[in-house]
Amino acid sequence: MRCGAIIAAAGSSRRMHGLDKTLAQLAGRPALAWVLDAVAAVPEIAELVVVVSPANHVAASTLCQATPLAARTVVCLGGTHRQDSVRAGVERLSPEVELVLIHDAARPLVTPELLRRGIEAGAAWGAAVAVVPVSDTIKQVDASGQVVSTLDRSSLVAAQTPQVFRRDWLEAAYRHWPPHAPPATDEAMLVERAGFPVQTFPGSPDNLKLTTEADLAVAAALLARRRQGAWA
Amino acid sequence: MRCGAIIAAAGSSRRMHGLDKTLAQLAGRPALAWVLDAVAAVPEIAELVVVVSPANHVAASTLCQATPLAARTVVCLGGTHRQDSVRAGVERLSPEVELVLIHDAARPLVTPELLRRGIEAGAAWGAAVAVVPVSDTIKQVDASGQVVSTLDRSSLVAAQTPQVFRRDWLEAAYRHWPPHAPPATDEAMLVERAGFPVQTFPGSPDNLKLTTEADLAVAAALLARRRQGAWA
Repeated sequence: MRCGAIIAAAGSSRRMHGLDKTLAQLAGRPALAWVLDAVAAVPEIAELVVVVSPANHVAASTLCQATPLAARTVVCLGGTHRQDSVRAGVERLSPEVELVLIHDAARPLVTPELLRRGIEAGAAWGAAVAVVPVSDTIKQVDASGQVVSTLDRSSLVAAQTPQVFRRDWLEAAYRHWPPHAPPATDEAMLVERAGFPVQTFPGSPDNLKLTTEADLAVAAALLARRRQGAWA
Repeated sequence: MRCGAIIAAAGSSRRMHGLDKTLAQLAGRPALAWVLDAVAAVPEIAELVVVVSPANHVAASTLCQATPLAARTVVCLGGTHRQDSVRAGVERLSPEVELVLIHDAARPLVTPELLRRGIEAGAAWGAAVAVVPVSDTIKQVDASGQVVSTLDRSSLVAAQTPQVFRRDWLEAAYRHWPPHAPPATDEAMLVERAGFPVQTFPGSPDNLKLTTEADLAVAAALLARRRQGAWA
């Protein structure tokens, strides 16, 4: 199964005070550069589409051209929501691609091993999402901030990327999603709602998502720690 | 309302490879020392009970004696589960204490401001828990690892400590909890199940819980960042 990867790098970084997390400096290099390194180390990824915003188009294109992936990479503009952006990326994959790996540029600590685990799980199950156990106690609250209930943590997981899907399932899920529904928070949610079985596989606690500026310090600390060993 | 604080420091640190997170070194000082600093800066806390394990009893006692809190601090041994440990601590508070603040030693980045916010919320509502928005997509999975559903993130929060309760509500909740039920993952859960309304107040994303060794690097990075400014 020919695999193509989509890197979602068109986010608005609202909680970063205007700093684009795709280009945020981490141990001296932009977050996107770390992701491209990991992707370049996975030969099973035959094609790559990096979906960017108008604001980071030039910088992201320059980064992509500087990697060994350049010849098999397309940079394209995203849409209003994450879901639209990834969909625009999927449309740019060649017709031969049957398996689509999706990864957030805002998760720069992904490893080649984790990408490969995603591809294997996606090929085996048709739809697979990296998850980690939920270590927090999760509560449901009402609009006034009062607790409604504490959820049973043992049945909960936090979804990460990579998420890997059969292309035909993903495209069917896009067609199935009601046009005016609120956007999905990840692609697995689209595929679940279309009725396809989605399997989980182990992500990594280090594979954090840059959301706030504090996360940059955290990611830099994890990268420094990784340098002392191998890829986690 | 006289306020007493319980610091839960009797955890087994299972995911720390034998390292006790209460005593883990963070920027040159044990995690517990950072918590004691924050508590010492909140004069509203009239009494303190630090609940420890047999293994860290001596070290924790030494730390407590070295703080300005020493005269109003008791160190006692915990029980099998977190819930038993905190309960043992509550029993050591003087009868005058009407409001109980509970905080995890494994959250060393708590600030005096956050503790004070907890006390105000607990006094106002009777039961209050620090929470942060859930930034991850949370999914429910079945025993085989297949996704059952994606939860609506907008109604979910992750509970932290401090958690602050009227003492009479907390003690009623202990009596209400069935003797052979699985232990609660936080005190708010006990109080919720006893039918008392539990209100949320804003915690802090920096107020992370040390769970894995990687969290130590993360916490050190956040502490270094904090030194550049004030308490977050």
